Amino acid sequence: MNVIDLNSDLGESFGAWTMGNDSAVLRYVSSANVACGFHAGDPQVMLATARSAKAAGVAVGAHPGYPDLVGFGRRNLTVSPDEAYAFTLYQIGAMDAVCHSLGLALQHVKPHGALYNQAAKDPALARAIARAVRDIGGLILMGLAGSCMAAAAAEAGIPFAAEAFADRAYRADGTLLPRREPGAVIHDVNEAVNRVVRMATEGVVEAVDGSTISFRPHSICLHGDNAEAVEMAREIRKGLETSGVTIGPLKEILR
Amino acid sequence: MNVIDLNSDLGESFGAWTMGNDSAVLRYVSSANVACGFHAGDPQVMLATARSAKAAGVAVGAHPGYPDLVGFGRRNLTVSPDEAYAFTLYQIGAMDAVCHSLGLALQHVKPHGALYNQAAKDPALARAIARAVRDIGGLILMGLAGSCMAAAAAEAGIPFAAEAFADRAYRADGTLLPRREPGAVIHDVNEAVNRVVRMATEGVVEAVDGSTISFRPHSICLHGDNAEAVEMAREIRKGLETSGVTIGPLKEILR
Amino acid sequence: MNVIDLNSDLGESFGAWTMGNDSAVLRYVSSANVACGFHAGDPQVMLATARSAKAAGVAVGAHPGYPDLVGFGRRNLTVSPDEAYAFTLYQIGAMDAVCHSLGLALQHVKPHGALYNQAAKDPALARAIARAVRDIGGLILMGLAGSCMAAAAAEAGIPFAAEAFADRAYRADGTLLPRREPGAVIHDVNEAVNRVVRMATEGVVEAVDGSTISFRPHSICLHGDNAEAVEMAREIRKGLETSGVTIGPLKEILR
Amino acid sequence: MNVIDLNSDLGESFGAWTMGNDSAVLRYVSSANVACGFHAGDPQVMLATARSAKAAGVAVGAHPGYPDLVGFGRRNLTVSPDEAYAFTLYQIGAMDAVCHSLGLALQHVKPHGALYNQAAKDPALARAIARAVRDIGGLILMGLAGSCMAAAAAEAGIPFAAEAFADRAYRADGTLLPRREPGAVIHDVNEAVNRVVRMATEGVVEAVDGSTISFRPHSICLHGDNAEAVEMAREIRKGLETSGVTIGPLKEILR
Repeated sequence: MNVIDLNSDLGESFGAWTMGNDSAVLRYVSSANVACGFHAGDPQVMLATARSAKAAGVAVGAHPGYPDLVGFGRRNLTVSPDEAYAFTLYQIGAMDAVCHSLGLALQHVKPHGALYNQAAKDPALARAIARAVRDIGGLILMGLAGSCMAAAAAEAGIPFAAEAFADRAYRADGTLLPRREPGAVIHDVNEAVNRVVRMATEGVVEAVDGSTISFRPHSICLHGDNAEAVEMAREIRKGLETSGVTIGPLKEILR
Repeated sequence: MNVIDLNSDLGESFGAWTMGNDSAVLRYVSSANVACGFHAGDPQVMLATARSAKAAGVAVGAHPGYPDLVGFGRRNLTVSPDEAYAFTLYQIGAMDAVCHSLGLALQHVKPHGALYNQAAKDPALARAIARAVRDIGGLILMGLAGSCMAAAAAEAGIPFAAEAFADRAYRADGTLLPRREPGAVIHDVNEAVNRVVRMATEGVVEAVDGSTISFRPHSICLHGDNAEAVEMAREIRKGLETSGVTIGPLKEILR
Repeated sequence: MNVIDLNSDLGESFGAWTMGNDSAVLRYVSSANVACGFHAGDPQVMLATARSAKAAGVAVGAHPGYPDLVGFGRRNLTVSPDEAYAFTLYQIGAMDAVCHSLGLALQHVKPHGALYNQAAKDPALARAIARAVRDIGGLILMGLAGSCMAAAAAEAGIPFAAEAFADRAYRADGTLLPRREPGAVIHDVNEAVNRVVRMATEGVVEAVDGSTISFRPHSICLHGDNAEAVEMAREIRKGLETSGVTIGPLKEILR
Repeated sequence: MNVIDLNSDLGESFGAWTMGNDSAVLRYVSSANVACGFHAGDPQVMLATARSAKAAGVAVGAHPGYPDLVGFGRRNLTVSPDEAYAFTLYQIGAMDAVCHSLGLALQHVKPHGALYNQAAKDPALARAIARAVRDIGGLILMGLAGSCMAAAAAEAGIPFAAEAFADRAYRADGTLLPRREPGAVIHDVNEAVNRVVRMATEGVVEAVDGSTISFRPHSICLHGDNAEAVEMAREIRKGLETSGVTIGPLKEILR
C-alpha cells in the first residue's frame, strides 16, 4: 500500500500573538510539528496545539529551534554540538511532557528554520540533534531528504523520515535548489500536486535539468501561513487521495 | 529508622554566569532541585548539574520558576492557574528529558522563589502545580511545610514532601515567621543544627512563642550561596548523622 | 479653543508576529504610544512604527512595559521602585534614539498594561516612573486620570496628561469602574462618542451613580485591535470634530 | 603629547548573576564599554556601572551585542544590516539615557563579542553599526584596528577609535592573528607591557613574521575576568605611565 505523511509546522503563536491557520491545516496533515518555545510557541500554545492535533487525529512532533524569538529561529546561529544537543533535548522533553499530559505519545522531531537548514549541511550539528532524539527514545527524526540528517539518524540508530517540499525544485542529485535560484519555487498548484503524486506513486521527481530521478520522501511539508498555502495543502491531499495514496502519520510508515 | 532528606537549589548558573557552590553542596544533600531555564539554568547547565548529582549519588528534582531571568524568579507575578500548569509542565518535561538522557529518574518537583511562596498561600496556584506534577507521573511534590501545597498534592493524589528551613523561625501554628519579623532568621549554626536534629528525632520544633509544636518535615533546605551557607550545610549533616538520623532522598522516605 | 489628544497603543508587533491595525489607527489619533521591546515591539518594529507615525503627522511617545513578552506586559509583577526607574529609563532611551534617528522629538511616556495599572495605585511605583521621565527631560507623562500618577508627575515637576477611556464607566470620584463591575464597559458607539464629546466640550462625564462630575482629560485612548475598535476610533474623531473640538497632540495642549 | 586610551568591557553582570571585577578594573582604564542588556547587563546594572565609572572619572561607552543572553553575545548570528542598525540604535539609546540621567555624556560605542568580530570582516554589518552611531550623534565608534570598521566610520563621517589588544599577536598587515594559531595569545605580562608601550610611544608593533610594522591604536583593551587579567591591566597602565604616556579617554584623543 502506498502511504505518505503530510506535515506542517503548527503552534507558532506566542503569548498574545497569533500566527497561522492551525485549525484549517489540521484538516489536511497527518503529522504536526509543534514549536517548543525557543523560536515560537509557549507552554500554553503548545498544550492547545497538541490538544487540537489530538482532536483532529494528527500525530504530534516536537519542532525545536534556536533560542531566537525575535528572529523566529530563522537566523543562522553558530552553536557547538554540545549546545545543540542540550537545547534540542530540552525542547523535546518539554513537548513530550505536554503530549504525555494529554495521553499522547510524541511521534517525531523536526528541527525548525535555521537549525533545520544548518543541520542539513553540518554533520556535527546533525549528529548532535540525532543524539538528543535517540536519548529520549522511541522517536522519529525528520529532516531534509538527501541531507546529512539521514546519515546522522542512521549513525544514532533512530528512524529517519525524509521530508520533501511540494513547491520546491530539486537538483539531479536529489538536493533542494536554493530559493535564490530561478525556478526554485513552484507557484502553480497543479504542478505542485502532480509532483507530489509522482513522488508518492512512482517514487520519482523531475529535476531542474529535466532528468527524472528516484525520490521517495516519507513526508511532504505543507504550509498554512495564508489562504493560498491552505488551498495548496487541500489540493495536495485531494490529489494524493484521488491517486490512491493513503495519508498516514510517520509512525505508520517508519515503524 | 529515622530518615530525613536534605535538599538544595542547584544548577542556578546561566550561560556565561556562574552561581553557587554546587560541587561543595552536593557533598551534603540527598536531593537536588535543579533550575529549569525560566529563572536560572540553561539546557547545558541542567545537563551538567544532573550529571554531577548523579556522580554524587544525589537524587534530582525539577525546580521550576517564573519566566523571569532578570528577577531570578523572585518577583511575584500574577499568573492564571492555566499558565502555571503549562509552564510547570513544560519545565518538568525539560528536566525529565535531561535526567532520562543520563539514565536517571526524576524524583521530585519543588517550585522556586516567588512561585514557591505564592503557591504556599494560593490554593488555585498550588493545585495547578500539583496537577502538572501528577500529569507527568511518578513524582513527589515538595513544598512549604504547613502550607496549602500539601492539600493540593493530596487532592491531586501525589506524594507531598514537607520542607523546613534550618535557619528560620516558626510560629505556633507551624507556619514560617516572615523574614521581616524580628528573630525570623537564625544565624547561630549550633542553634540551627539543634533545631533540625529535634525535628528529625523528636518531630518537634520550638515556636517563636516558646511553645514546642509537632513538626516533622520530610526535607530540610540547605543553601550554598556562600562559604557560611556551605559550612552550615556541613554542620547540619554532621549533626543529624551524629544523632543517628539517616540522610536519604525523598524517594526512600515517601514511596 | 477646545483641543483634545487622541492616543493609541501602536507598534505591538514583535519579530515575525504582527498585531493591530496601526495604519488604520494612525488616521485617527494625534499621539502614538509605541511599545519599547519589553512587552512587545522590537527595534525594527519601533523604527517602522515611528516612521509611520511621522508620515501620518502623529506625535510619538514611549510605551514602556514590564519585561514580560509572553504575558504581553499584562501580568502584575512585583518590582522595586529602583527596578521600575531603571527599566523605564532604559526603554524611554531606546525609543528616544529611534525618534532621534528619524528627526523626531519624543513627546511623551505612557506606561503599558500592568505597569500602567499598578502605577495608578502605587505611589512609589508612580514616582519611580515619573523620575525616569524627568531624568530624560522634555517629556510629558501620560497616566490614568484621577490616579496617583498625576501627583507623582507634579512632584517630579513634569507635565501630566490625564487619560480617559471612551468606552469605560467612571465613578462619582472620577476613578474608573473596574472591568468586572456591571456596566463598566460601554459597547454602544454613539454613547461612547457622546461621552467623549461632553468631556471635551463641557468638561464633564456622567458617573455610574447618575451624577454629572467635572472631568476634563487631556487625551482619550483609542484601540485598534479589531474592526469594531477602528470604527469606534473613527466615530470618536468625527464626533469631536463635528462638535468643534480640535484634535491635537499633547505637546500642543500641555506645553 | 603621547596619549592613549585604555578600555575594558564592564557591566557584564545580569540580574542575580555577577561577573568581572569592575571596581578593580575601573582604577586602570580611561573608557568603559558598558553592556546594554542584549548579551549582558540589565537596566539596573547599567545604571550602577555608569555611576561607578563616573565616580572613577572613567568615560562611558555603549557596548551593544547580539540579542543572545545565554550565549553572552559570543555566537555568530546572521543578521541583516537593517536588523543590526535597529538593535544597535536601540542599545545605544538605552545607554545614552542611563548616562544622561547621571549627567554624563555618552562617549563611544564598541560592539561586543561576535558582533564586533563579524563587523570587523563584514562591510555591510560595519556600515549598519556606523550609521546607528552617526544617527545618535556626537559619538566615537571603536573597533578592531585594521578592520573594515574604520572604513565604515569614515563613510558615515564619524570618528573612529582603533583598538588593539595587549595580549594578542598581529600579522604583518596589521590584522589580528586568529586565536587558534600558535602564538596568537601573549601570556607574558612583561612582553604584553612592552608591546603596548611601543605602540604608544613608537607607533609600531612587531608582527608574527618578525617584521616591525606601523601600528598606532587609539585604545588598548584590558580585561578584568580574573586576578591575572587585573594584574596585567595594572602593569600595562604602570608601564605606559612610566614611559611618559598619558592615559586619557577617547574624547581627549579623537575630538
